[in-house]
Amino acid sequence: MPFTYERTIHFPDTDAAGVVFFARYLSICHEAYEEALGMAGIELQSFFSAAGVVVPIVRSEADYKRPLACGDRVRIAVRPERLADDSFAVRYEMAKLGKVDKQAAVVRTVHVCIASDTRSRKSLPPALAAWVDGGAQG
Amino acid sequence: MPFTYERTIHFPDTDAAGVVFFARYLSICHEAYEEALGMAGIELQSFFSAAGVVVPIVRSEADYKRPLACGDRVRIAVRPERLADDSFAVRYEMAKLGKVDKQAAVVRTVHVCIASDTRSRKSLPPALAAWVDGGAQG
Amino acid sequence: MPFTYERTIHFPDTDAAGVVFFARYLSICHEAYEEALGMAGIELQSFFSAAGVVVPIVRSEADYKRPLACGDRVRIAVRPERLADDSFAVRYEMAKLGKVDKQAAVVRTVHVCIASDTRSRKSLPPALAAWVDGGAQG
Amino acid sequence: MPFTYERTIHFPDTDAAGVVFFARYLSICHEAYEEALGMAGIELQSFFSAAGVVVPIVRSEADYKRPLACGDRVRIAVRPERLADDSFAVRYEMAKLGKVDKQAAVVRTVHVCIASDTRSRKSLPPALAAWVDGGAQG
Repeated sequence: MPFTYERTIHFPDTDAAGVVFFARYLSICHEAYEEALGMAGIELQSFFSAAGVVVPIVRSEADYKRPLACGDRVRIAVRPERLADDSFAVRYEMAKLGKVDKQAAVVRTVHVCIASDTRSRKSLPPALAAWVDGGAQG
Repeated sequence: MPFTYERTIHFPDTDAAGVVFFARYLSICHEAYEEALGMAGIELQSFFSAAGVVVPIVRSEADYKRPLACGDRVRIAVRPERLADDSFAVRYEMAKLGKVDKQAAVVRTVHVCIASDTRSRKSLPPALAAWVDGGAQG
Repeated sequence: MPFTYERTIHFPDTDAAGVVFFARYLSICHEAYEEALGMAGIELQSFFSAAGVVVPIVRSEADYKRPLACGDRVRIAVRPERLADDSFAVRYEMAKLGKVDKQAAVVRTVHVCIASDTRSRKSLPPALAAWVDGGAQG
Repeated sequence: MPFTYERTIHFPDTDAAGVVFFARYLSICHEAYEEALGMAGIELQSFFSAAGVVVPIVRSEADYKRPLACGDRVRIAVRPERLADDSFAVRYEMAKLGKVDKQAAVVRTVHVCIASDTRSRKSLPPALAAWVDGGAQG
């Protein structure tokens, strides 16, 4: 069972076409990623700061399946996957909730762990590795 | 008792100073406004569309009392106040939650009801008027 | 020679890691897309409205090569590519400008033309088709 | 003659009402503030970092006069005003450009200079003070 995150679509998420702007789906998935990390006991404020070991996103892919409007409710399932000693991917499946849930988007991000000063690759820190490997098995 | 809305501060809310960007406090207050309207039975997607009667914000004021970081939890109390037949204000008090809650910001928005085509002023629609006047009494 | 768009990275583009948030690269590429369409004589306000024929993005891919900070200057080269009668892709190469320009990101979006009411696929409107096919040849 | 900044309204600036979201006017004014500081020789990346002396916005006020749509062109005049040894305001007048320019918004931000560690008030750094006082006289 993957970690899931639910939230409502708000007006600032939308654009003049009346629906969520395509880049904003990625921000919403990042919220789900943060919630998943927090649930795994990772302290977010230091995790996302620029100091020490950082884990930038080096690639994103998104398939937008369905428009989302203000007031819609979405659920995002978050599945991490180990790629290497110093990298992992996260797969997000976003559903629009209703009488019948409908797939709204599928997003994938690739993360690489580096030293913030030298930008050389580093092994994932233990707490992050545990979350990634737990997710891969889950 | 005013309507309250809680949410977590996420990474996309922050800026390079490591805290929530000042304009973003207003977006977060708008989320609270949407949730309050939804709770009052107002259908958000049509309320915020550009058709018929619209209720643009004509003024905002914000006092920023405390920085907010990724992972912080905030609660926003929402209090509408009638100004005239065709206008109202909303006052938002944002608290950073913790062992002791601390005031993070006080925001006020002024809304005027107009016809979307002529932009002439209109009385508030009944459901909106009921929410505003209920809040003013509450 | 592709169309190019230059702009400065501003503070609201950044996040608490001190650099541009990954989803924001896509917004910046969309600005470049708008400028390219405008240069091709396409009227943006109606093009991006929800009425008639609309051209939503159905897929995005991005490779993030280099962090960008407040005050950095970027140039985006925009290259459309025809995929079918009713669809096209746009490839964006973003460079960080300096004594030596350095690649900051490569982004690709896929667009499908549909009727806004039925959501059935439609041929690209002539002005858009001309831009896409000109770009593919350019 | 105040410093002025021009830019085009882009699709990510808009919301589902088809026009620029109210909080976004403040972001656009902040861009103008950054450009004014840059023109005054202030290095933005360190100015807006969380280290040493920081200059957070403690208050904002905005009067929204006119809706702005995708493709509109705006000009923002930036006028700093000294308030005290450790604080200043900036007044922004935003015009929508056209055959006849029309006022789109008037925004005011109040900034206080503090030490990032103790959060005690500090005199404005010399380069910033020079910009503020030059603007007040200009």
